Amino acid sequence: MSKILDNFNDINDIKKMTIQELNDFAKEIRHFLVEKVSKTGGHLASNLGVVELTLSLYNVFDLDKDKLIWDVGHQSYVHKILTGRKDKFDLLRNYGGLSGFPKREESKYDVFEAGHSSTSISAGAGIARARDLQKGDYNVISVIGDGALTGGMSFEALNDIGFRKTKMIIVLNDNQMSISKNVGGMSKYLSQFRIDPTYNRIKKEINSTLRKIPNVGDGMINSIQKIKNGIKQVVVPGMLFENMGITYLGPIDGHDIKEVSKVLKLAKKTDGPVIIHVITKKGKGYKFAEEQPNKFHGVGPFNPSNGELCSSHKESYSEAFGDQIVTLAKENKNIVAITAAMPEGTGLESFSKKFNNRFFDVGIAEQHAVTMAAGMASQGLKPIFAVYSTFLQRAYDQILHDVCIQNLPVIFAIDRAGIVGQDGETHQGIFDLSYLSHIPNMTIMAPKCIGELKTMLTFAVKQDYPIAIRYPRGGDNPNVKMSPINDLQRGKWETLLGGGKIAFIATGKMVQNAILVREKLLNMGIEATVVNACFIKPIDKTLLLDLVDKKYSLVTIEDNIVHGGLGSLVLEYVNSLNKKAKVINLGFNDEFIPHGSVDILYKLYKLDVDGIFDSILKLV
Amino acid sequence: MSKILDNFNDINDIKKMTIQELNDFAKEIRHFLVEKVSKTGGHLASNLGVVELTLSLYNVFDLDKDKLIWDVGHQSYVHKILTGRKDKFDLLRNYGGLSGFPKREESKYDVFEAGHSSTSISAGAGIARARDLQKGDYNVISVIGDGALTGGMSFEALNDIGFRKTKMIIVLNDNQMSISKNVGGMSKYLSQFRIDPTYNRIKKEINSTLRKIPNVGDGMINSIQKIKNGIKQVVVPGMLFENMGITYLGPIDGHDIKEVSKVLKLAKKTDGPVIIHVITKKGKGYKFAEEQPNKFHGVGPFNPSNGELCSSHKESYSEAFGDQIVTLAKENKNIVAITAAMPEGTGLESFSKKFNNRFFDVGIAEQHAVTMAAGMASQGLKPIFAVYSTFLQRAYDQILHDVCIQNLPVIFAIDRAGIVGQDGETHQGIFDLSYLSHIPNMTIMAPKCIGELKTMLTFAVKQDYPIAIRYPRGGDNPNVKMSPINDLQRGKWETLLGGGKIAFIATGKMVQNAILVREKLLNMGIEATVVNACFIKPIDKTLLLDLVDKKYSLVTIEDNIVHGGLGSLVLEYVNSLNKKAKVINLGFNDEFIPHGSVDILYKLYKLDVDGIFDSILKLV
Repeated sequence: MSKILDNFNDINDIKKMTIQELNDFAKEIRHFLVEKVSKTGGHLASNLGVVELTLSLYNVFDLDKDKLIWDVGHQSYVHKILTGRKDKFDLLRNYGGLSGFPKREESKYDVFEAGHSSTSISAGAGIARARDLQKGDYNVISVIGDGALTGGMSFEALNDIGFRKTKMIIVLNDNQMSISKNVGGMSKYLSQFRIDPTYNRIKKEINSTLRKIPNVGDGMINSIQKIKNGIKQVVVPGMLFENMGITYLGPIDGHDIKEVSKVLKLAKKTDGPVIIHVITKKGKGYKFAEEQPNKFHGVGPFNPSNGELCSSHKESYSEAFGDQIVTLAKENKNIVAITAAMPEGTGLESFSKKFNNRFFDVGIAEQHAVTMAAGMASQGLKPIFAVYSTFLQRAYDQILHDVCIQNLPVIFAIDRAGIVGQDGETHQGIFDLSYLSHIPNMTIMAPKCIGELKTMLTFAVKQDYPIAIRYPRGGDNPNVKMSPINDLQRGKWETLLGGGKIAFIATGKMVQNAILVREKLLNMGIEATVVNACFIKPIDKTLLLDLVDKKYSLVTIEDNIVHGGLGSLVLEYVNSLNKKAKVINLGFNDEFIPHGSVDILYKLYKLDVDGIFDSILKLV
Repeated sequence: MSKILDNFNDINDIKKMTIQELNDFAKEIRHFLVEKVSKTGGHLASNLGVVELTLSLYNVFDLDKDKLIWDVGHQSYVHKILTGRKDKFDLLRNYGGLSGFPKREESKYDVFEAGHSSTSISAGAGIARARDLQKGDYNVISVIGDGALTGGMSFEALNDIGFRKTKMIIVLNDNQMSISKNVGGMSKYLSQFRIDPTYNRIKKEINSTLRKIPNVGDGMINSIQKIKNGIKQVVVPGMLFENMGITYLGPIDGHDIKEVSKVLKLAKKTDGPVIIHVITKKGKGYKFAEEQPNKFHGVGPFNPSNGELCSSHKESYSEAFGDQIVTLAKENKNIVAITAAMPEGTGLESFSKKFNNRFFDVGIAEQHAVTMAAGMASQGLKPIFAVYSTFLQRAYDQILHDVCIQNLPVIFAIDRAGIVGQDGETHQGIFDLSYLSHIPNMTIMAPKCIGELKTMLTFAVKQDYPIAIRYPRGGDNPNVKMSPINDLQRGKWETLLGGGKIAFIATGKMVQNAILVREKLLNMGIEATVVNACFIKPIDKTLLLDLVDKKYSLVTIEDNIVHGGLGSLVLEYVNSLNKKAKVINLGFNDEFIPHGSVDILYKLYKLDVDGIFDSILKLV
């Protein structure tokens, strides 16, 4: 079945293959991808879409020398297979195993790391300029999807390289999707090249028309020549890029290795920046992924023969968010929902159908999303921006500058807070409490259970100031039964269980762990109090003062970096009281957290029940 | 001299004026601006450039109903004059006086606040969508400069409104500058409309040419019609915007009130998004500002008759940075410098002339700047990104995701840290320690004096990890004599003065204050130790442990929000020691700091010498 792949060891062999052999190789790679990812889970559809494109890049470029940069990076599996890592796919995205993204530690062929979108043109520009200053002689190729092109920093980079005429190649991998269906003027602009055959028809007609015009002297010919040049620019679809100083080639069929190779060779010879517009199909060659590219974007283990997911379904925070926002929107017509190209991941699909005119998918454009939300809030709407914790990092300035200075009631529904697992460093939502809690006017909440997320959303839409609600990937621990807080008041915590001289001040998902740790301590005869720090900002100073006065040792627990998060806030306040008090801060230390399953990572970083229990025992 | 302005009280009177009266009014307003700003300082040149544009907007729109949004906002002085605030210009940018930016508290005509660039289209889109959902009936107009258009979020917004056909008007105020000369493919693209008269010539020629073509049947006419439509798109200069779904009108002379009013009326009637390209001259009407628009962008008090600045010159940190980077670059050819449209403000002018090929002005594009720097660093260059503290907020994600995860040696030269004064909330650099210090792999320094900034830069270019150096606006206190640290080692602090049982752990500019506070205490017979916390991250744990063991009370002093900054870091470490220790954190509390002079603000927020002294006395 895999006679080429099994014996493949040298990237230079690709250059020796015929087109037929490359096509056969592509088939083998596809089979390999489906088989491996069906076991480990991973980003299947995007990788199936770039098999021929990746082979073509290896066919044309000398990647021992040339620099290939993958935007986002989740489509780099084929690249990894080709560069000596095919035997590591059994542990793809597992702790200690192969990363699902480019990693410089893994291979010299992984030139620049990513995980978030729209960075590859900037990185490529930096590398190309380093090359030019160091008199290097190599090509720089950035592969970027059409979705990533909606991110503003892509435009910042295009604007810069077009102006300075930086020699580099941008491969625009256009599958008319990012993660979900792509939006925006740019996307519409790109798509017209393939759906509107008039471009080619006009080109032909112009030529025949001009040939029929009688000769009426030199002036006339000159005019016609100018018209022709003008028309040429209209007919060439990449006018938008050409206007910015970037040579446009395409569009071409990204699954045609011969054609792609030909155009890549042409680009190599072109001076200055070039963009090659390649049309691909996400999920190509695997029926179920072609039909449901969203489902197979980032997928868990599945049955390759029918495409069905192996894992049983459990209610998630994202779903609860999606349900509750629909319920609230029925009552309150001022509620609008915003997503940056993640309607499915954030649970907004149902809302988008039921309230289409109140739903705004702005593309991968978190900055715009936040300031647009601020504009909406300034006129009395209740915008809810549903976004992943690490993607909101892109809009830090807009949160501070546009929302919080004006104290506008924008609601941030921050999904994937805490450890998200297999996607690794770039996706772990362990910074949001630190980058949000020092911003004046910001209120931050975290629910201890799914039901409480609904309570918090109901509370949030009634307030008139900025609110962030952070919640984890996945669902609740079925071993802990909890009810949502009854009477949610800004800055008031909930004491769940009393007793002893230790008080756990836990937030979000860590409340479940605190309850289980308390049980373990009780088994040893040690009592403890569990407080649900449902508000990270403001903290409950009344309760804290009371606990300090009653000589409790305080243990803060958060699934965030300790510095700048809940632990810091509690410690700073308690310290300011100038009373004798013991505070212990549990959370993540000053380091990035690699990929691995959520459970393994919490265990390794000592924020699972056993880890917290051990930390407490040392202190008791 | 000011007969119109003196009697002007009602914005509706503008609609009643003749073009001649409006032009006379414009002259009076210019005179008023030069006279007032020459006393208070402020953003002169940009306001002189929009006098006619602002009058035209008031002439055409009903601003009691329509919403006008100023990008950045420093060009809103004329708008403020017209909306009942002309008598407040004597206290422009003074504490408690008129803000130099739109402020919703000041006037109902200030619809949305700004200070940073490129937010107005997003805000306008949000407002327009609120209007549409609420069945409102008003116009939304965002005025944005060509410089601001290089910021990625402008593109994100254009992409979105072009796709959804949101009805709003964008006035592109094109003066071919942002603060300094504008860069980028977009700028080049825009400028060709005015320098290349062939656009209009081609349009005329096409019409006459087509009229001469003999009639050869219906098919032929159809073809020609198509060609004509095609040509129309080429000839209309705004093709780039049209491609994104935005109607383009222009370019027009922004100082011609009649012409601007005509086109604004046309835009009002147009459905969907419209961009009006208006050409203006920065500094228009005041000779010295026309000649030196950079100098008169943000200017201190000056003599209106000769344009000379009143203040005497004192060496600034920006200048020292500029000098030292030139010195270092002579020895180390890997050093490159990057700015986001601020070559003058950051002190990079000399470098840009001496090492032009190693200097990169990327436009107002902080995100791209940081990731491009990461790309450069990945290939062995030593990129130094010189940027203001609050503008770097835009690149928080890129610092974390592109620089720090990969641990790349990018140097951030962070100017305008701490209070910057008159520009107010949006410009106070009081968050950088909080948004940087929780990012793993980041090293942060702050020099206690100008000489030490040079030492730190020399140190930084030799390291192979990310480094931020933050320093204040202006220069040193001449009353404190200090020498740069001799032996700079990562994470090692400098004990400047010993004694007593209080240790000041001060950073940056606050070291000077700590020394003076110590003097005041000495006069009362109280001794104290002063430590220069030259590294904010990592902190000097050895020294801290020693001070704790010696029973010192520790007083941290920083010109940053306490939460998440130096104070938090020290407190978290000392608390983790589980020893008896007293820590007091001085810095800014959880609030935004309004505009006012630097000295007044430090006094009001108790971070001047007297304020710190008082805080200490309460504790002693």
